[in-house]
Amino acid sequence: MNLDQILSNIHPVEKELGKIARGHLDNLTKPPGSLGRLEEFARKLIMIYENKIPDSLKKVIFVFAGDHGVAEEGVSAYPSEVTRQMVLNILSGGAGINVLAKHAGAEILVVDIGIKNNLKNSKGLVTKKVVPGTKNMRKNPALTRNEAARCIEVGIDLARKYAQPGHYLLGVGEMGIGNTTPSSAITAVLTGKPVSEVTGKGTGISESTWKNKIRVIEDAISFNSPNRSDPLDVLAKVGGTEIGGIAGMVIGAAANKIPVVIDGFISTAGAFIAYCLEPKTKDYMFASHNSVEAGHRALLEKMQLRPILNLDLRLGEGTGSALAMFIIEAGLKIYKEMATFKEAGVSEKTPAS
Amino acid sequence: MNLDQILSNIHPVEKELGKIARGHLDNLTKPPGSLGRLEEFARKLIMIYENKIPDSLKKVIFVFAGDHGVAEEGVSAYPSEVTRQMVLNILSGGAGINVLAKHAGAEILVVDIGIKNNLKNSKGLVTKKVVPGTKNMRKNPALTRNEAARCIEVGIDLARKYAQPGHYLLGVGEMGIGNTTPSSAITAVLTGKPVSEVTGKGTGISESTWKNKIRVIEDAISFNSPNRSDPLDVLAKVGGTEIGGIAGMVIGAAANKIPVVIDGFISTAGAFIAYCLEPKTKDYMFASHNSVEAGHRALLEKMQLRPILNLDLRLGEGTGSALAMFIIEAGLKIYKEMATFKEAGVSEKTPAS
Repeated sequence: MNLDQILSNIHPVEKELGKIARGHLDNLTKPPGSLGRLEEFARKLIMIYENKIPDSLKKVIFVFAGDHGVAEEGVSAYPSEVTRQMVLNILSGGAGINVLAKHAGAEILVVDIGIKNNLKNSKGLVTKKVVPGTKNMRKNPALTRNEAARCIEVGIDLARKYAQPGHYLLGVGEMGIGNTTPSSAITAVLTGKPVSEVTGKGTGISESTWKNKIRVIEDAISFNSPNRSDPLDVLAKVGGTEIGGIAGMVIGAAANKIPVVIDGFISTAGAFIAYCLEPKTKDYMFASHNSVEAGHRALLEKMQLRPILNLDLRLGEGTGSALAMFIIEAGLKIYKEMATFKEAGVSEKTPAS
Repeated sequence: MNLDQILSNIHPVEKELGKIARGHLDNLTKPPGSLGRLEEFARKLIMIYENKIPDSLKKVIFVFAGDHGVAEEGVSAYPSEVTRQMVLNILSGGAGINVLAKHAGAEILVVDIGIKNNLKNSKGLVTKKVVPGTKNMRKNPALTRNEAARCIEVGIDLARKYAQPGHYLLGVGEMGIGNTTPSSAITAVLTGKPVSEVTGKGTGISESTWKNKIRVIEDAISFNSPNRSDPLDVLAKVGGTEIGGIAGMVIGAAANKIPVVIDGFISTAGAFIAYCLEPKTKDYMFASHNSVEAGHRALLEKMQLRPILNLDLRLGEGTGSALAMFIIEAGLKIYKEMATFKEAGVSEKTPAS
């Protein structure tokens, strides 16, 4: 099935189901609306699930990992080999995402979609390498159009595969040294904002490294001239493999009517590629948090997605997705487990108040 | 032990331990500071626990419940008997706090500190009734000074009792129809702000009920003339039993060096009484969320406590505390469970970046 066919399979959620869900929420023993956004999350899930409420919420976070040729331009605080080292750290359970996913009761799968070096087979690793790292986008397109499309396919296929056996809540995250650079490039091109406004300090770079990063991104955009009305062209020329994989997972989640939780800036850049390809994907997205990266807010505003958490996170890996999954699940449990006024014998609001 | 003795037993946390904690956090496999507020929470816990890190975080939420004479002035959307009905609902597991505490792995105890009618003994109920509801503060002091002091003692005693067998994280919440009215009164008196600026719509009242509520609070303050430099006088004259219990629990938590998570507006009014009695209590508090109640923000600003969540909650019961406990615990797990750069063989930040 080609991308256009899959995109045409994405349908908006049924708003009428949201009204029915609100009716149930208003019968629960609390003032109407008093659980705020938890009620919003419950309604959104009910619409996505078409009122077929899962018994339990099986949760999985996909950490898409890839290397970036542009890292050789000195845009990151860390050397490129850290991508692979951190993937090994995740596979052996020592990274931030391991701790938080376990805390939230979510599985983790690492997807090698574009790491430079090969990794040994390992439990928790899914090998779907499209390229061994992207090309340096300052001097070349990061990916060919065909490679970019294949990254999206990887994500779509994984979403379909994991949606079927009852993974009712997907999350995305990423690992890739240098990947705030393509994320800022994508954001600048697709929102039309100046590079300096959507470029942050990533893992924590100095002022001079930050200025260099802006120059590198401006050069890359000027060299490649990505076509902002063609998201696949933007992904190919100034994107990355993990960003493409995330775009594909969002598309696949929407096509399979499964909610997907988006992590921070890089993941949101992927989700934004999906949104530009098909805005209806938004109905299936949850924005986990508001990171400190400048470009992140610009993307969330364009999609009109209000982030769930605001904890000054800027780690990536899916750490925001893991924490937000707990909150989203809380909304569903409220919907399923609270007593109604009638069941509990509690008096309702007095009409005159 | 009298209140003054207990207050003199409250010491600020040792800031040096926070620096040591930061040193450990910076050795973990993530860019320094990239887990944002989770790292802040870890540091705060380490300071409170004096670096004796608990193996697991046993969590308990106390729901202080009491009735309010002022409810007869038509300040709430619900009749007074709902306090007792909702307590029964919590005891049988059907309320919002039940769902969220279970989700976060916390126990719940309901403290009858001032419910009008008596309740049968029941698992999860702690009977510590000081009065069978407060008096109508528009016409009388809500409590005598002695009753207010006894409410604080109840909270102090419970904190001590539960701190000892290793409850390492306490949470507070409340149930009491009409209790945003005394909370707004306390806030107006202790912050000096006009009543209309710190009075919200509680469980969801109409414009005319809201205007009446403001009038009732203004009358109560004018009738009682509480002394703003004497927090116990304010609690007695325009407060409530559950608010006093919460103030006591915060004091008891601080005296026993145990962190305490504060729920929404009413709980924060209780915490603010504790803070006015002894500002060092702040070192032991976590502000769980930013509710939609207008007075809540005023209190958090005075204490310079930044709320953890912003989910438009306005239910009370401890629901915000339950959700925040999960996030706070995530910070501690990051501290305890993540691998260091050395352990994981991951390269550190390049010095030049």
